Amino acid sequence: MKSAIDYRLYLVTDSRLCEPRLLPDAVAQAIEGGVTVVQLREKDASTLGFYNTAMAVKKVTDTYHIPLIINDRLDIVLAVDAAGLHIGQSDLPAAVARRLLGKDKLLGVSAGSAGQAAAAFRDGADYIGVASCFPTGTKSDAQAIGFEEIRKICASVALPKVGIGGIKADNVAQLESLGLDGIAVVSAIMGQSDPKKCAADLAERLREIGL
Amino acid sequence: MKSAIDYRLYLVTDSRLCEPRLLPDAVAQAIEGGVTVVQLREKDASTLGFYNTAMAVKKVTDTYHIPLIINDRLDIVLAVDAAGLHIGQSDLPAAVARRLLGKDKLLGVSAGSAGQAAAAFRDGADYIGVASCFPTGTKSDAQAIGFEEIRKICASVALPKVGIGGIKADNVAQLESLGLDGIAVVSAIMGQSDPKKCAADLAERLREIGL
Repeated sequence: MKSAIDYRLYLVTDSRLCEPRLLPDAVAQAIEGGVTVVQLREKDASTLGFYNTAMAVKKVTDTYHIPLIINDRLDIVLAVDAAGLHIGQSDLPAAVARRLLGKDKLLGVSAGSAGQAAAAFRDGADYIGVASCFPTGTKSDAQAIGFEEIRKICASVALPKVGIGGIKADNVAQLESLGLDGIAVVSAIMGQSDPKKCAADLAERLREIGL
Repeated sequence: MKSAIDYRLYLVTDSRLCEPRLLPDAVAQAIEGGVTVVQLREKDASTLGFYNTAMAVKKVTDTYHIPLIINDRLDIVLAVDAAGLHIGQSDLPAAVARRLLGKDKLLGVSAGSAGQAAAAFRDGADYIGVASCFPTGTKSDAQAIGFEEIRKICASVALPKVGIGGIKADNVAQLESLGLDGIAVVSAIMGQSDPKKCAADLAERLREIGL
């Protein structure tokens, strides 16, 4: 699976926007609409709660043959045999995560600069989350890094790059030709009443910019 | 190491009582006073913060040849190669933790009833944390289970049993002959200005009740 990931439309969940018991269905709808990767992010759950939600969401992603990536928690990756782990700069060091994951699981690393992206590449990342593309309310610590920095990051590492942060249907076009391989969204799908339609809209916008 | 753990005086850390940068020294002092096992509990840290603190504390526990057990986070156990994991009833299921830890790492499970202790035994626990022995302010959800339940838990499983919850030098004597193999303390050592003296006092009280 690792060799053929389609990063175009990458959904990141948020339990503040969709409660855990509704998440599997929302994820299924989003996949029906065109989501190609799912990342489960549960910043406030107990470990048991995270595990149970991950098991439930994995049933859905397995059904659709979509990779499930877990945010921050390598223990949950191993516990549910997810496809991979996504870490930020305040999570496990990437080199440690790589060693513990082995070579068959995906490792994604968020980078806000070309330097961070280069370090992630060196430490064994499989893809880079380029953050933040736009100002966002989902992560209070996220600052938009600017299109020039996005371009620099994309030019600097030979890995798939997924833009994240404040991306919505009406600003996808601004990301054209920066070098991104896909976009990750949270509230553009998770906070919406019709996740399938929102995902389909985003997929259409991506096609319009050649992704 | 797993076959010869001395559970008599088991220290559980608490970053609310001792900030991370002071923790390695406090742990060293507590071990000098007689602590035989250390559990690192970091409920509010980022994963990177937990990892860094665990690395620093493990240097100390390795120096003294004392096992370091990590609360809740199996990823941190693996990342720092700790001696084991301690889980409660809202953490990973014990059977899942056992499978991921392998047989060489310790698994401790908190139990508040003979039924929970029997389940932990069945799922592969190496020792049982019997909680709560007394009312405690450290964990807001902890209720004292009563001496009869402690006795029942101790009689029900053929594993080492460590009492925890509100244990202090002046109530250790009340735990005599209940079947416990040791006591775990948080604030009786971590919240104190002289961790070494507090640990030594507790060790003396344990000797007085034959532990």
